[in-house]
Amino acid sequence: MKLRNPPVNSLSLELLTELVIGLEKLENDKTFRGVILTSDRPGVFSAGLDLTEMCGRNPAHYAEYWKAVQELWLRLYPSSLVLVAAINGASPAGGCLMSLTCDYRVLADNPKYVIGLNETLLGIVAPFWFRDSLVNTIGHRASERALQLGLLFSPAEALQVGMVDQVVPEDQVQSTALSVMSRWMAIPDHARQLTKIMMRKATVDHMIKQREADLQNFVNFISRDSIQKSLQVYLEKLKQKKG
Amino acid sequence: MKLRNPPVNSLSLELLTELVIGLEKLENDKTFRGVILTSDRPGVFSAGLDLTEMCGRNPAHYAEYWKAVQELWLRLYPSSLVLVAAINGASPAGGCLMSLTCDYRVLADNPKYVIGLNETLLGIVAPFWFRDSLVNTIGHRASERALQLGLLFSPAEALQVGMVDQVVPEDQVQSTALSVMSRWMAIPDHARQLTKIMMRKATVDHMIKQREADLQNFVNFISRDSIQKSLQVYLEKLKQKKG
Amino acid sequence: MKLRNPPVNSLSLELLTELVIGLEKLENDKTFRGVILTSDRPGVFSAGLDLTEMCGRNPAHYAEYWKAVQELWLRLYPSSLVLVAAINGASPAGGCLMSLTCDYRVLADNPKYVIGLNETLLGIVAPFWFRDSLVNTIGHRASERALQLGLLFSPAEALQVGMVDQVVPEDQVQSTALSVMSRWMAIPDHARQLTKIMMRKATVDHMIKQREADLQNFVNFISRDSIQKSLQVYLEKLKQKKG
Repeated sequence: MKLRNPPVNSLSLELLTELVIGLEKLENDKTFRGVILTSDRPGVFSAGLDLTEMCGRNPAHYAEYWKAVQELWLRLYPSSLVLVAAINGASPAGGCLMSLTCDYRVLADNPKYVIGLNETLLGIVAPFWFRDSLVNTIGHRASERALQLGLLFSPAEALQVGMVDQVVPEDQVQSTALSVMSRWMAIPDHARQLTKIMMRKATVDHMIKQREADLQNFVNFISRDSIQKSLQVYLEKLKQKKG
Repeated sequence: MKLRNPPVNSLSLELLTELVIGLEKLENDKTFRGVILTSDRPGVFSAGLDLTEMCGRNPAHYAEYWKAVQELWLRLYPSSLVLVAAINGASPAGGCLMSLTCDYRVLADNPKYVIGLNETLLGIVAPFWFRDSLVNTIGHRASERALQLGLLFSPAEALQVGMVDQVVPEDQVQSTALSVMSRWMAIPDHARQLTKIMMRKATVDHMIKQREADLQNFVNFISRDSIQKSLQVYLEKLKQKKG
Repeated sequence: MKLRNPPVNSLSLELLTELVIGLEKLENDKTFRGVILTSDRPGVFSAGLDLTEMCGRNPAHYAEYWKAVQELWLRLYPSSLVLVAAINGASPAGGCLMSLTCDYRVLADNPKYVIGLNETLLGIVAPFWFRDSLVNTIGHRASERALQLGLLFSPAEALQVGMVDQVVPEDQVQSTALSVMSRWMAIPDHARQLTKIMMRKATVDHMIKQREADLQNFVNFISRDSIQKSLQVYLEKLKQKKG
């Protein structure tokens, strides 16, 4: 499954909706047992959530957008498919989150391909289920530091802290992901799926229980003048960079 | 305490019952403060649960067997004794579980002495209290990967991931275990026991609360035709190997 | 903020009260955004709880003292300030606990500067919120071993297990702590504070819920004849050492 939303694979409402529908189809099609998540455009895995969906819109739009983000996570994290992330580019915030939902992460060895949940740098806060996905991957202490500082890890650091499972030369990311996939495919499917659910169920149940509150919380937070202002400043900077 | 049930120290109903009674005696005898768990037969620490107890029998037998497995864990995990595992052989599945209940694990440095919870390879699923014992030892992420893939770790890998605390040459396993034991014995007993309970109580309480459901779940799962078939296939393979 | 209570910076009732009041002031003064905790007397960061407050007094005094210990932790652990520990000396028990509440720990590279929760060596047990602070920092397995054995880690071991974040030459502790502080100060305050609370709230809420029971538990435990005796023996030894 290739992420494609030029120029930086932002998770726009449209892309989120496509991903959720695509995953649902694959999940129900018994001929598919695994998915490799990668980017159609090497250099950026995904720039994460689309700030233009969270800036200068009305509360109803924020709510619709956030529901789609929740939906994607709820599709990915407990997926019965084997999910392998072939991370062939930078992977901040929502891009990092997507890779954290996978069963295995392969990252291309390029110092520009940083990965992490850098929300605090934008003046916003990663929601609790981003936190849970991270804590389940790298543990409590490393998460506390990474989330507060909004750390973006280089490939070597990401491997060291456990954010990814393997770092390989850029031209071997896809082949490595494929061979990882065949290794996971060799396990009896039913036993593997039950085991995965056993590991992730508590985290998913907690999210579902808090889903409405999380939605309200997001809409209230993002609608604040101070937050809107800091997002606008950030967006302006991005535009100037590109210009 | 030496495990002895030729040829591979399978945890038969009889061996489980003996172990539980033996541990109960040691626990109540105030002259004993610690136990070293090892194998009477170097080469195999324990092959784990006895598949012949879980294959081709009736539900009442499965229930009796599973109660004995639960009982052993409930004796070992919160034991007030100092438990040191002197792992002098391969230690898959239930063998690994026993070592995970100990306070310290010493593994002989022999590439054949693999250790891990490899249930998925047999098409079955490790119960939640196997998972909890593993997560408490090697953390969430490493457990997720190890349990889904049914990984059996070599000594070097086991040390790296934290599955064991020390790897030593094969002829030094017992002496190392003894010196570890004397180190732990030097701590005031009462304070050490209260501290151990503080660390393990939540895990034990959760298991006791879910004990009946876990029993029902096991009997239903193991009685399924598909599971019985895959166990029979596995047992046939084992017989041919030996033959 | 410099700890000063000669000769070893024991956390006497007086020092605890001063610290709590001082932290409250800093927390409410919006011109302060961070605090570096260090010792006025290099060589001892803090010897931890003051045994003379817990030995040979009456239950009312034990209760008053323990409330002050709880209060300090409740001020430090969820503090909205950035807390950096510049650990310029030995840091056993309560000294270690204080450093565990910080956001970052820098330890001077001197083999005498050991750090850890060594309560079991005195025949007592670290309370559950000491445990939680440790588990959140170094994980479950390392905590289980460290707490049972009352381990005091050397700087190299402390870094290895994750008890501290950085070990530097003794004359660079303060400058390193300052540069760490400016790194943390660069993050938007509001987002950082919300993120910190998200990481620590569950631990703090659990402590508050159990606060009264923990107080009762401490007073009962410390009032026991056997515990008083072992503390007296320990205090005598300390006096002879100094003498």
